[in-house]
Amino acid sequence: MSELTLEGSNLTYVVIAAVIALVALGFAGALVKAVLSTGTGTKNMQEIAGAVQEGASAYLFRQFKTLAIFVVIAVVLLFLLPVHDLDGSETAVKIGRSLFFIVGAGFSAFIGGAGMALATRANLRVAAAAREDGGREKAMQIAFRTGGVVGFLTVGLGLFGAAVVVLVYKGDAPTVLEGFGFGAALLAMFMRVGGGIFTKAADVGADLVGKVEQNIPEDDPRNAATIADNVGDNVGDCAGMAADLFESYAVTLVAALILGKATFGADGLVFPLIVPTIGVLTAIIGVFITRLRPSDRNGLVAINRAFYLSAAISAVLVAIAALLYLPKEWPADWLQRLGSTDLPVGPQWVAIIAVVIGIVLAAAIQALTGYFTETEKRPVQDIGKSSLTGPATVVLAGISVGLESAVYSALVIGAGVFGAYLLGGGSVLLSLFAVALAGTGLLTTVGVIVAMDTFGPISDNAQGIAEMSGDIDERGARTLTELDAVGNTTKAITKGIAIATAVLAATALFGSYTSSLTTSLADAGETNIGAYVSDLLNVANPRNLVGLLLGAAVVFLFSGLAINAVSRSAGAVVFEVRRQFREFPGIMDRTQRPEYGKVVDICTRDAQRELITPGLLAVLAPVAVGFGLGAGALASYLAGAIGAGTLMAVFLANSGGAWDNAKKLVEDGSYGGKGSPSHAATVIGDTVGDPFKDTAGPAINPLIKVMNLVSLLIAPAVVMWSVGDDANTGLRVGIAVVAVLIIAAAVVVSKRRPIAMADGDDQGKAPSDQDDDDLEPVKA
Amino acid sequence: MSELTLEGSNLTYVVIAAVIALVALGFAGALVKAVLSTGTGTKNMQEIAGAVQEGASAYLFRQFKTLAIFVVIAVVLLFLLPVHDLDGSETAVKIGRSLFFIVGAGFSAFIGGAGMALATRANLRVAAAAREDGGREKAMQIAFRTGGVVGFLTVGLGLFGAAVVVLVYKGDAPTVLEGFGFGAALLAMFMRVGGGIFTKAADVGADLVGKVEQNIPEDDPRNAATIADNVGDNVGDCAGMAADLFESYAVTLVAALILGKATFGADGLVFPLIVPTIGVLTAIIGVFITRLRPSDRNGLVAINRAFYLSAAISAVLVAIAALLYLPKEWPADWLQRLGSTDLPVGPQWVAIIAVVIGIVLAAAIQALTGYFTETEKRPVQDIGKSSLTGPATVVLAGISVGLESAVYSALVIGAGVFGAYLLGGGSVLLSLFAVALAGTGLLTTVGVIVAMDTFGPISDNAQGIAEMSGDIDERGARTLTELDAVGNTTKAITKGIAIATAVLAATALFGSYTSSLTTSLADAGETNIGAYVSDLLNVANPRNLVGLLLGAAVVFLFSGLAINAVSRSAGAVVFEVRRQFREFPGIMDRTQRPEYGKVVDICTRDAQRELITPGLLAVLAPVAVGFGLGAGALASYLAGAIGAGTLMAVFLANSGGAWDNAKKLVEDGSYGGKGSPSHAATVIGDTVGDPFKDTAGPAINPLIKVMNLVSLLIAPAVVMWSVGDDANTGLRVGIAVVAVLIIAAAVVVSKRRPIAMADGDDQGKAPSDQDDDDLEPVKA
Repeated sequence: MSELTLEGSNLTYVVIAAVIALVALGFAGALVKAVLSTGTGTKNMQEIAGAVQEGASAYLFRQFKTLAIFVVIAVVLLFLLPVHDLDGSETAVKIGRSLFFIVGAGFSAFIGGAGMALATRANLRVAAAAREDGGREKAMQIAFRTGGVVGFLTVGLGLFGAAVVVLVYKGDAPTVLEGFGFGAALLAMFMRVGGGIFTKAADVGADLVGKVEQNIPEDDPRNAATIADNVGDNVGDCAGMAADLFESYAVTLVAALILGKATFGADGLVFPLIVPTIGVLTAIIGVFITRLRPSDRNGLVAINRAFYLSAAISAVLVAIAALLYLPKEWPADWLQRLGSTDLPVGPQWVAIIAVVIGIVLAAAIQALTGYFTETEKRPVQDIGKSSLTGPATVVLAGISVGLESAVYSALVIGAGVFGAYLLGGGSVLLSLFAVALAGTGLLTTVGVIVAMDTFGPISDNAQGIAEMSGDIDERGARTLTELDAVGNTTKAITKGIAIATAVLAATALFGSYTSSLTTSLADAGETNIGAYVSDLLNVANPRNLVGLLLGAAVVFLFSGLAINAVSRSAGAVVFEVRRQFREFPGIMDRTQRPEYGKVVDICTRDAQRELITPGLLAVLAPVAVGFGLGAGALASYLAGAIGAGTLMAVFLANSGGAWDNAKKLVEDGSYGGKGSPSHAATVIGDTVGDPFKDTAGPAINPLIKVMNLVSLLIAPAVVMWSVGDDANTGLRVGIAVVAVLIIAAAVVVSKRRPIAMADGDDQGKAPSDQDDDDLEPVKA
Repeated sequence: MSELTLEGSNLTYVVIAAVIALVALGFAGALVKAVLSTGTGTKNMQEIAGAVQEGASAYLFRQFKTLAIFVVIAVVLLFLLPVHDLDGSETAVKIGRSLFFIVGAGFSAFIGGAGMALATRANLRVAAAAREDGGREKAMQIAFRTGGVVGFLTVGLGLFGAAVVVLVYKGDAPTVLEGFGFGAALLAMFMRVGGGIFTKAADVGADLVGKVEQNIPEDDPRNAATIADNVGDNVGDCAGMAADLFESYAVTLVAALILGKATFGADGLVFPLIVPTIGVLTAIIGVFITRLRPSDRNGLVAINRAFYLSAAISAVLVAIAALLYLPKEWPADWLQRLGSTDLPVGPQWVAIIAVVIGIVLAAAIQALTGYFTETEKRPVQDIGKSSLTGPATVVLAGISVGLESAVYSALVIGAGVFGAYLLGGGSVLLSLFAVALAGTGLLTTVGVIVAMDTFGPISDNAQGIAEMSGDIDERGARTLTELDAVGNTTKAITKGIAIATAVLAATALFGSYTSSLTTSLADAGETNIGAYVSDLLNVANPRNLVGLLLGAAVVFLFSGLAINAVSRSAGAVVFEVRRQFREFPGIMDRTQRPEYGKVVDICTRDAQRELITPGLLAVLAPVAVGFGLGAGALASYLAGAIGAGTLMAVFLANSGGAWDNAKKLVEDGSYGGKGSPSHAATVIGDTVGDPFKDTAGPAINPLIKVMNLVSLLIAPAVVMWSVGDDANTGLRVGIAVVAVLIIAAAVVVSKRRPIAMADGDDQGKAPSDQDDDDLEPVKA
């Protein structure tokens, strides 16, 4: 293959993309200044916010320390894995891939860290603003603009990173980008899992003792877990989510660029950058036009207005860009690459329709998720009604709502993929690129979506700070409650969209996987490559069915481990909070202060410990399947993980969201209202939903990406050691066995920790090792 | 292809198989006589048992009426679908396929009905025996022998049906067997779903009002739902389960025979009959050696002894049969059929190892399920411990146990499939046959397994009858409680084994599907068939990924619908029981008798209504995917359904079983014992688990088989209307659209029924239509 170059206007466009990415970062800086310049409320508020800030930073620092080890190991392994089909030098590309792995991981970490640092400051300012006149509009603006910062960082750094790689590595950019995407996804997955465990351990633990046993309200300062709960909102919902969305952005872009090169050549490395460049511009518009009008029923109206407007602008601008940039008819060399002349429309319309499919998909998921989780709609109403027959029926109703809603989301996503597929006509390669372009279409809305999502935890935390400080009047409290409710829905929507990007990106990456197999087989001297690949990827082959079953199994295991981790850590929190109530009787009449720091410490330590097993599973399971069962089984493995993962992720997110809002429904006075048995039943449903929606569910998105990228990275090695002169069954099976053993050891070790934890400083021991009085039954 | 004949010893073997099948039926008759000749207890007991019998028969009669419509429609459609590659006349084979569809459905219905009829009589006799001296051994024997009847019916009718088809249709037997298997699976699925809804609606409804609100024990005659609950045990756990296991038996046999012909020719139509013939013999041994010794800790010890002994005997006899019957080396015509000479072992050892894999798989699943659901083991202990922090943590702990246990079962099943796959060496066809043979190996244990499983509901019901009649002393009650606990574990084990047969049969049927595609493509005039099929089945094709996603989605939707149906029907039961307590105040002091029949009526009607939507979904979803997205997407659809279905089925069965036993653990005195908040928490967990383990979970097994067989049946039509002269996109898409519309309409209609139901005779209306007093909150 001849070397690929970037010339003339193509070079200019990539430079423009990089510059606009920097502009977005500039806007982020400006917004930071604006947010920080607002009022910081009362001394009480500042003290509480300070404690939250401190806990959050301590957690993040510790998490980065843990992850640094993983990053170092990954860099080394990454450098050892073979690469194929390069224009430039192998060593240079390998170094680039490792380097940009670090950059991807660093960006992911930075966005999470910076977003969280700003959020902990914005919480306070939102709470302060709610006290003032016109507080509703002001508070909403601060919260949304803080989200805007994270949004700009996400799109800015994602686009900048990808543009730089394309500028520097040109034809070898796809290989280097695999490193970039992998770094982003790996870090994001760890931050999602760790943050998710922290936030829900604290939340569940706080609720179980506070609301259920002691009958004190949420965010009551007498609850020792309350600061940890607020820290959790920041480390889980802010830092974890921001990293996750950055990862979605980066990986989708990577998939589009890899396939772009394979289909459109040099132009295919440029057009996928033009689409998100337009997305950056519309994100800027979206964030700045989001203003709550006094006539708006609630904040969601303002946010939806911004979302749909910026989506529409994106669609129009992308269409114009495609018409100007892409050729009307298929050039001969493109047709040759695609291997088919049976193409329904020209390049312009492939691009336009695909991108519009992505944008429409985002809107459809937004509507669908809203239907299944909004308080006024039938599903949540039904769950609320089932509280009349007790907690068991609430749990069952939520589970069936979740299962069904997952199906509708899967149908919508499936329709999107199938629509893009049809654009490819006779060329599977073009179909895959169309799927990837639909992904970039979805990305044009990411700026606003991140802003929407970050909005949630900030409002939640602002409410916490206001509540704990006691320095807020009724009107201010109402404002914050309203914002918090809006935040619940936006959070659910973001999760739906994130999983949609996972499916699109993962589907597209399949194309890269297949072409990597082809190249590697050629290198290994295989002659009848077409037949070989077809046999490898035949879904009816029992070996591949086993792979598929394993892929689905990993999703179940990962979810089970994450939920289990929350149960265990929450148990530890419960015993600690109970201990404090028992040993410091002055807490209840407010003459003694709980030791908040202890609970923060427990959550921090447990989250670090518990994230290792699911993390190892995500990285090593594809290694075990690929080296052990072969490249074909690995492909089916990925397919199984995508299928089961999509449904599981939406199921967990939506049943959790629906339970949360069913609780709010009862709290607003339905079916007996606060304090009734119905309320108790919905609180139980909500608690079950906590790790569903905030730990296991959202982590499945980066999980799928990590497994896809690991597979892509190891594919050449798997083929090399399976076929031809370098075939080495012993080595292959050996690697697989080691991977399996490490996973098994991690699972066994994590199982050895008992579910119910000891109290005080005695965390390591099983309850049976010590005083059994701690195991007193809950007081109903 | 030359016509296939059965000659000489082959003919003899098939006749012997048929005769031995009849012998099994004779044993069934003898056991029936033996069971019915035992004592029938007190008048009180007889009255109660009579009411249960009556309710169960009424339900089954109504169910068969509903299903008759489905059967008629299916027969007509079956006759219209094209067939390919026949030795004999097309019309004869089509008539045979339709006829044996009716036979399969009839056998399935008969086994369910007869098993249930006998069970309702055996319940009474077990309860009566428990009152006598030596009651423990006697009661156990009656219960297990009744199970034995169902076991003999299952293996006898399954083997007899298959042997007759082979005798009559010879080379065309595979096509006719598709009808036989489909009939069995379709009926079984409906009986599983309908029975599952009935039993859990009654159970959950009874518990919610009785245990939770009125604080009266289970099976208390003052509870209006208590007869319905006992009827449910018979229609769900007995009739539904028996039909399901017959279906597993029949479909596995069908898959083995189809592939047997394709690989070993005429011998391949005989050997898969020899293996279950041996199974029949060992089942007879197993049932008759099961005798509780006074030294046995509990009934499970006796059952396990019988299971492992008959499994070992099977393995030895099958090995001898293979060595005698199959050639040592590969005959030339077999090698030609297999398309490869790279085969690791000869036919004898392929057969022996594959069958042993199946037997070992059954034992492994038995052990694994036992670990995750037995009271003494860590997982159930952990769930019990989590009851100290309330119902939410119980639910979470059970869910994570279920998710993880599903993974281990999937690993074991996957290992079995992979082991069988390796036997095939270079021939995928041989690999598939090995998988099917592993399935027949698993089948050799089915006789004992059915006996084990039926044992559960009989003991449960005997306890109910004894409890309600009041005519039992403490020792007798203890005996029945012990038997009931054993029944819980055997039920969970059976579900695990049933899903394993689903995976093996479905994997094997993939081979038939692929070869059906090949034949159909040849008929349609396609020349480059190999490449065409490979492209069709390539898992990396986005179209196929969409199919896979839809397959996984159907499993989620089906589960959600089933759980939802139970919630809705249980709500109706709750309101009816509450109404009776309110309107007949004499019930509580036993001066008035509740109207048991009303609750039975509600459950009967609701079960019929609610089973239609999941039933239509199972039959029509593959039709929509196949005709709409093509044969390739349909294959991936099946793969996705197998992957997600296996995990979902085990997850639902095991978390349900674990919750049930965690409740028993607390009831036995742990963590506060009966009446404590911990007990309340585990009761909630158990209630959540009820529709998991007895409605949604077990129905997934026949669901997978139904979808597989529908796909196999429509494959020729899909190909015919896609490729070549008969290609007709309009017709294809039209059929798909109609299928989608019917599914959508069914889902919408079933949604229109509100969750909480009205009381009394007012069942059809929403609660909002009437007196709101019925919607009183639960009394905590």
